Amino acid sequence: MAQNTGVQIVLAARPKGAVRLDDFQLKEFSIPTISAGELLLEVNYLSLDPYMRGRMDDRKSYADPMKVGDVMPGETISTVIASQHSDFATGDLVLAHTGWCTHLAIQPEKVRRITRGVLPTTTQLGVLGMPGFTAYAGLRDIGRPQKGETVVVAAASGPVGSLVGQLAKLDGARAVGIAGGSAKCAYVKNELRFDAAVDHRSPDFRQAMKAACPDGIDVYYENVGGAVWQAVLPLLNRFARVPVSGVISHYNSSPDKSGPDMLPETMRLVISQRLRIQGFVNFDYVDKLYGEFQREVSRGITGCLIKYREDIVDGLENAPKALLGMLEGKNFGKLLVRVREPHETHESEASL
Amino acid sequence: MAQNTGVQIVLAARPKGAVRLDDFQLKEFSIPTISAGELLLEVNYLSLDPYMRGRMDDRKSYADPMKVGDVMPGETISTVIASQHSDFATGDLVLAHTGWCTHLAIQPEKVRRITRGVLPTTTQLGVLGMPGFTAYAGLRDIGRPQKGETVVVAAASGPVGSLVGQLAKLDGARAVGIAGGSAKCAYVKNELRFDAAVDHRSPDFRQAMKAACPDGIDVYYENVGGAVWQAVLPLLNRFARVPVSGVISHYNSSPDKSGPDMLPETMRLVISQRLRIQGFVNFDYVDKLYGEFQREVSRGITGCLIKYREDIVDGLENAPKALLGMLEGKNFGKLLVRVREPHETHESEASL
Repeated sequence: MAQNTGVQIVLAARPKGAVRLDDFQLKEFSIPTISAGELLLEVNYLSLDPYMRGRMDDRKSYADPMKVGDVMPGETISTVIASQHSDFATGDLVLAHTGWCTHLAIQPEKVRRITRGVLPTTTQLGVLGMPGFTAYAGLRDIGRPQKGETVVVAAASGPVGSLVGQLAKLDGARAVGIAGGSAKCAYVKNELRFDAAVDHRSPDFRQAMKAACPDGIDVYYENVGGAVWQAVLPLLNRFARVPVSGVISHYNSSPDKSGPDMLPETMRLVISQRLRIQGFVNFDYVDKLYGEFQREVSRGITGCLIKYREDIVDGLENAPKALLGMLEGKNFGKLLVRVREPHETHESEASL
Repeated sequence: MAQNTGVQIVLAARPKGAVRLDDFQLKEFSIPTISAGELLLEVNYLSLDPYMRGRMDDRKSYADPMKVGDVMPGETISTVIASQHSDFATGDLVLAHTGWCTHLAIQPEKVRRITRGVLPTTTQLGVLGMPGFTAYAGLRDIGRPQKGETVVVAAASGPVGSLVGQLAKLDGARAVGIAGGSAKCAYVKNELRFDAAVDHRSPDFRQAMKAACPDGIDVYYENVGGAVWQAVLPLLNRFARVPVSGVISHYNSSPDKSGPDMLPETMRLVISQRLRIQGFVNFDYVDKLYGEFQREVSRGITGCLIKYREDIVDGLENAPKALLGMLEGKNFGKLLVRVREPHETHESEASL
């Protein structure tokens, strides 16, 4: 590969059901020379997140669907390696939606500068970035846990779920985490200090949920759907709140799922328990909550009240396999791809 | 039947799927003599409402399920025919949850006195009673239509739907009503003055809904579920509100419905459109909203801004058949059973 050749990963075909590796294609491209006012970025870390699966389908959502042939979308930490703009210098670190690629020419208004601070820069893609803010906005604006209430969240060892539970604890609520397998459950209970952790792979999952929530559930932060929803639904208390940030278990399925139809039972309990089910997208809350989110969670991390975990995969070429794994729950912590080692980071501090 | 014999209708068997006439049993009983402090009521009008279907099942809801053999529940307008309490005199009209019966001995604290006023007393079971308040609470507390928004409601010629749409109009919103058949649609459009009426029995129902809602739907007041929900869901705008008061189309079906599973598609749109789906029960709002409800709707009726319609069936023995018909959409207006003609009402004013 020549010195001036970059790599990007594009959508080769829309997935039919579960995503497969050949839905992606790795392509080389000539790294462009930038024009006046532009920046050239080299990508260091790519964040892999569940919403990417939805973007691959040709369906209406909060963002337009991708076209086949488009570069896979994604937020990254990147280094400015050439600048034709006076506000940025070579070596500056920025957050940008570059997508799955090694290099990109970009307008400065599309990047956000990262100030190197006490915490590793990778936190800007996880606990202090979009996933953390998704947890914060949904819990604080919709969930609103009260002292003594029970808050349940799935994917509890992941970047969203782990913060939901830890924030709920800081609010004086009980936190119950659902995770897949004993290692993740041990982490949720012992490291993150949730009140209980339940393994959704366990054959007695429903009974275990019931036992972990003796007073029912007041807030269920929904990010998985499917079997977890079916176990949670009968435990929801009157006036329970269900902020819905995602339904990862549905992402790999076709829209016309065969039965049983869970909607009638869901709506029956919506009425009898006066449930509030409310979808949200983190970026609707940026103006209202982003500042307090960053302040509160940074303080929590430096004060050892909030922990986080990262799962870093090396090499952009491994991003498709890593995304597939995430959709099956194989990652353990915030999933990142190290695309090109940055010249200076604090990654040694990035894991617990 | 002897002079001192009353009639009541009990649950003879729990329905399996659709209710049948032999799920009910008519029983005679001896009208009791009352004790000190009690009242003896003679029932004049019984209100038939969709919630009764849910009560017949053995499932958790906002009220305990009935037991087989229990008198069917229901609110009535009744006359005090004997009083052993100084606050009530023979001839007083009261509202009470007597159930499906001709007579009941009752404690005074369980009845609410009706003051004979300008409007027919039967309105206390309809537009000015529980159904009207259900419309009012869900629309005003959860739906909150803004000027120029589109509000959709099904069963639009019924006591709840008709008030939802008329209140939405008073709020400056567009009202679109869904009803079954051309007569009901004509009533909704021409008498109730909704902006559009759509016949859910029409073969091009989905297209007609789309045409009736060119700017999408901002508030969908859910009281039917099923096919209507499937037509409404793709039309819901961002941040749409869905107060859920009932899902009459599900009431007659068993809990494990065969597919397709509509829940994944519903949740996908909950997220992408940031929908708020919230169940409620009118009695949660009594302290907060009942006074303003009665004032506003009474003024609306006397000022000819709010219309209503009643569908009165004669004879308690016809209540089971009337309930079955209501669950199939056969009634046209608020369904009441005239059990015993009261000595004095304003029923001639009760219909349009």
